[in-house]
Amino acid sequence: MINLSFPDGAVRQYESGVTALDVAKSISEGLARKVLAASINGQVWDATRPITSDATLKLLTWEDLDGKSTFWHSSAHLLAEAVEALFPGVKFWVGPALDKGFYYDMDLGGRQLTEDDLAKLEKKMNELAKNNSRYERKEISKQDAIAYFEEKGDEYKLDLLQNLQDGEITFYTQGGFTDLCRGPHIPNTGFIKAIKLTNVSGAYWKGDEKNKMLTRVYGVTFPNQKELDEYLLMLEEAKKRDHRKLGKELSIYTTNDDIGQGLILWMPNGTVIIEELEKLAKETESAGGYKRVVTPHIAKENLYHTSGHLPYYADSMFPPMEMDGERYYLKAMNCPHHHKIFDAEPKSYRDLPYRIAEYGTCYRYEQSGELFGLMRVRCLHMNDAHIYCSKEQFMEEFKAVNAMYLKYFEIFGIDKYVMRLSLHDPEKLGQKYINEPELWLETEELVRNVLIETGVPFVEVKGEGAFYGPKIDVQIWSAIGREFTLATNQVDFAQPRSFKLSFTNKENEPEIPLIIHRAPLGTHERFIGFLLEHYAGKFPVWLAPLQVKILPISDKFMDYANQVNAALKNAGVRVEIDDRSEKIGKKIRDTELMKVPYMLVIGEKEVAENKLSVRRQGKGDMGSVELQAFVNSITEEIRERKSGE
Amino acid sequence: MINLSFPDGAVRQYESGVTALDVAKSISEGLARKVLAASINGQVWDATRPITSDATLKLLTWEDLDGKSTFWHSSAHLLAEAVEALFPGVKFWVGPALDKGFYYDMDLGGRQLTEDDLAKLEKKMNELAKNNSRYERKEISKQDAIAYFEEKGDEYKLDLLQNLQDGEITFYTQGGFTDLCRGPHIPNTGFIKAIKLTNVSGAYWKGDEKNKMLTRVYGVTFPNQKELDEYLLMLEEAKKRDHRKLGKELSIYTTNDDIGQGLILWMPNGTVIIEELEKLAKETESAGGYKRVVTPHIAKENLYHTSGHLPYYADSMFPPMEMDGERYYLKAMNCPHHHKIFDAEPKSYRDLPYRIAEYGTCYRYEQSGELFGLMRVRCLHMNDAHIYCSKEQFMEEFKAVNAMYLKYFEIFGIDKYVMRLSLHDPEKLGQKYINEPELWLETEELVRNVLIETGVPFVEVKGEGAFYGPKIDVQIWSAIGREFTLATNQVDFAQPRSFKLSFTNKENEPEIPLIIHRAPLGTHERFIGFLLEHYAGKFPVWLAPLQVKILPISDKFMDYANQVNAALKNAGVRVEIDDRSEKIGKKIRDTELMKVPYMLVIGEKEVAENKLSVRRQGKGDMGSVELQAFVNSITEEIRERKSGE
Repeated sequence: MINLSFPDGAVRQYESGVTALDVAKSISEGLARKVLAASINGQVWDATRPITSDATLKLLTWEDLDGKSTFWHSSAHLLAEAVEALFPGVKFWVGPALDKGFYYDMDLGGRQLTEDDLAKLEKKMNELAKNNSRYERKEISKQDAIAYFEEKGDEYKLDLLQNLQDGEITFYTQGGFTDLCRGPHIPNTGFIKAIKLTNVSGAYWKGDEKNKMLTRVYGVTFPNQKELDEYLLMLEEAKKRDHRKLGKELSIYTTNDDIGQGLILWMPNGTVIIEELEKLAKETESAGGYKRVVTPHIAKENLYHTSGHLPYYADSMFPPMEMDGERYYLKAMNCPHHHKIFDAEPKSYRDLPYRIAEYGTCYRYEQSGELFGLMRVRCLHMNDAHIYCSKEQFMEEFKAVNAMYLKYFEIFGIDKYVMRLSLHDPEKLGQKYINEPELWLETEELVRNVLIETGVPFVEVKGEGAFYGPKIDVQIWSAIGREFTLATNQVDFAQPRSFKLSFTNKENEPEIPLIIHRAPLGTHERFIGFLLEHYAGKFPVWLAPLQVKILPISDKFMDYANQVNAALKNAGVRVEIDDRSEKIGKKIRDTELMKVPYMLVIGEKEVAENKLSVRRQGKGDMGSVELQAFVNSITEEIRERKSGE
Repeated sequence: MINLSFPDGAVRQYESGVTALDVAKSISEGLARKVLAASINGQVWDATRPITSDATLKLLTWEDLDGKSTFWHSSAHLLAEAVEALFPGVKFWVGPALDKGFYYDMDLGGRQLTEDDLAKLEKKMNELAKNNSRYERKEISKQDAIAYFEEKGDEYKLDLLQNLQDGEITFYTQGGFTDLCRGPHIPNTGFIKAIKLTNVSGAYWKGDEKNKMLTRVYGVTFPNQKELDEYLLMLEEAKKRDHRKLGKELSIYTTNDDIGQGLILWMPNGTVIIEELEKLAKETESAGGYKRVVTPHIAKENLYHTSGHLPYYADSMFPPMEMDGERYYLKAMNCPHHHKIFDAEPKSYRDLPYRIAEYGTCYRYEQSGELFGLMRVRCLHMNDAHIYCSKEQFMEEFKAVNAMYLKYFEIFGIDKYVMRLSLHDPEKLGQKYINEPELWLETEELVRNVLIETGVPFVEVKGEGAFYGPKIDVQIWSAIGREFTLATNQVDFAQPRSFKLSFTNKENEPEIPLIIHRAPLGTHERFIGFLLEHYAGKFPVWLAPLQVKILPISDKFMDYANQVNAALKNAGVRVEIDDRSEKIGKKIRDTELMKVPYMLVIGEKEVAENKLSVRRQGKGDMGSVELQAFVNSITEEIRERKSGE
């Protein structure tokens, strides 16, 4: 008999050799139908693999990231089975799961896959899935594995085998397809109910452009058709909401080859959004006791040796400039500059918490192939701040930072988010993690408590903390359900030491502060990219580059239009008159295209009644109102940063 | 007889050989007593030098820059005469006039001058001045000049003589002192009524550190004691108002060796001032129809070849970064980036004037020896904007820019300013100036008319325009009378061509716009440096980093202090409580040192009466007022950006 411990703390006895699937069945048949894999002592296993000693066990379903990942990896094998059935002689390289879906790289002997081929493959996969073929795991000796692939003449799998050692080699077989694979897999192909092959592209073998070009087939699968349909709808919507497309249509930003890739030129419309975001940040931070600073964009090499960014982070930094016999670097982060401001004047416990904020511009080198719209750029405006505090102050400060995140989520209508708490690995203290075992445990516990107290959804990940302390990565989902990494939130007990920062505590002794790095709004680049998709370009009024367009039906009404324009401008509203000699229908259509929240149509009736005909973006005619009433309602909408829904 | 033309256009006849001094005497004895030199056909001459052909003549007095310059150069000779009298055997190098005063470099055979020596020299100079010795000009052959200095054994003057040619060598003698000198000089030493030797320093011969170290004596002189007294007072005041001293005392900015020289770290107090200035600029520009943009700090090399900054301006730019096989430069100016934004979307006459503004951060390489506080730095935040307009729109746009300057001068209490209109030189068209003769004349005339119309004081300087168009340099004077160059204002008809910018005009034809470069508030660095001196750190309330300090007399009054604090914060006032356990006298003194505009003293009486005791920086006790009355008056003072005087 063996003891299995469950996540709820219960421990139950089972016969040795029991499988996770058996355990699930012993609870309910319904549960068993959902089990995709299991976490055994923190490692993901096949749900059908016998357990032969005491262990902790967590059943993994579609609700778990590891469950999904296993599902998609098994789907890659199903794809391979279908490819082998339709295109015999194919050779496979690797087929991993992705954040969403999977791919498999294959050598089709020069054959180009068509849309038609993809449709045939999908059909074949559906057929094979219905066979409910089990994914069978088999441990095998290296010698036998080599013999198997030598017989097949498969140079790719032989290459993979080179780096593997006896005792860690496994084969998985489902239906007629066998693959070298460390697993795990789902119990059988019948779990895969909905299949979509999304894309084909070329991919150099091992990512090296000197190697042969293989064919990469991308796909995504689901346990039911409804989820696939929703996903495809989301993809279609995401295409319409593509921030690069909207960014151009709405004149938000541009780039230019003479300036350089990944360097965003923010046009007037984008700059309005930037300024509104900075205003929001400034207000919020000011209320939170932050002060603002301005620092230059460069510093001498030595600063980054002190911070530890050089030489390790050098590949992500811009190359240096040689001047006066020194090397200067564009800053890739604001912290070292902020530490120097903290250190410019002696600090006492009365000065702490010392919170300094800056929308600092950083430069990071990204490979040109990695650059993508506003999402991957080389120049980033970061909603940065650093809080220098004592250990006693830490919990309250961290709570306040957390509350700031939640406040922002509410303002931007971000309903779905999760915080990923990355912890240290005690076995790697002094190597991957600064060797402060007690501080690690203490701050991790504090951070965890804050997250629990505030009821924020979070997951914990061991061994993914930063070198200098635990961190929280914040994931958010846009209105159409796409996931974005917004920001990180880090505790730092390394840099205060390397920069020799200290304050005089109440006992009149020097003490080293803790630092919290935080950037709730991430970077302008990524956040505005997110917002473009999130709002589909239909910004709430407070963020809209142009808030009101006045549309006189003809030149006759320009006097009244000017009067309305002046009243709105005076109230601080961003307003323009469309004074072109165009038909009113065209004026309305053009304004709709620019997604301006309010249109005020002005004609004979409006002038006579001294009123306005109001049209709201996406909602159409809102009827006729008096000018002052409109001014009052729109300024309230702006002041309160209403979502506009 | 010869004809002399005067500045007022009059032409009069004089006998050949007449001197400017004779002419002055013929007008009035009073005038003659003021004449220091004369401008003859645009060249500065001794007032006592005979004029032998037709010429234009302008009498130069202390009111003229060239008059002052002659006065100070003659004072340098007077210094030399005194030195020779007290320290026989001294040898002299050169002794030029400066913007304010003069110096003379001398070889004293190793003798160090003491404070006492300077006092003796001043006394001697005063004695010699009273002799009313004439400055006698004598033309001399190179041979005779060499013989003279060989006999004296003066290797310095012999070195100077090497590069001179026969026919251009003159000696000047006053009293017992003769010098090789091209002149001109004032009529006699009696004009010099007030003398101050301000400083002694070492100076390598010819500025080369491999050469011998000479002694440099600095001095300043005036035609009356009152002006000297005022000047010395101003120097003393300037020392107290030194922006580097105040910048440190008031925690405005800092620098750090690990970051680099000339790279300002703006601390929280300085950042408040930056943000208030940017808010003012944004409001003013928004009312003027400007839109704002944000651009990166780097661009590829080629952009600066297009703009013409490379290779000519390379020495003033930071060295390049080599990346992806390209050279990237930190921008030294914002214009090329703005041009790319103008060019990102097609423009029609309806889009013009297109005005885009950015507090853009530029990097300029200055020699480390040239760096000086906030005045000469390597990273500058510039109040930049570019206006793209048609020729027809130019006059009105330029007028609006001019009006913006005047508005700012009023806000900051800048009473004394002058605009220096720099024009092209028609003979250098195509070399030093873009070859557009008509555009030059046309725009120069337009700019001149704007200046005349608005009644702004201005001077014209031929041959100092920028390559691409006429420019205006704006000189301002601080409250203590020191001069600063604030900004330039430029018309540009070259860059629109090199960047191939165009718009579709009303005739549906492509047309090249004109560009106005303007930066009325200059750079944050220089302007805040100026303001520190101008206000002696006592900023008007709207600019003050901390506006109100609440000083409770003891802990007992903290509740009321917190209440007052909350009310002021809520009204947007920057306020803090001094909650230290210090005596009220010390609290007041410390707050005075930080030059906080308002102090609110809170004790028994204030709590009982529900009032505040208000102290105004520099004015002392203002009596007792009710909280709401104080909130109303201070918020009005802030909103209206009152000067506080």
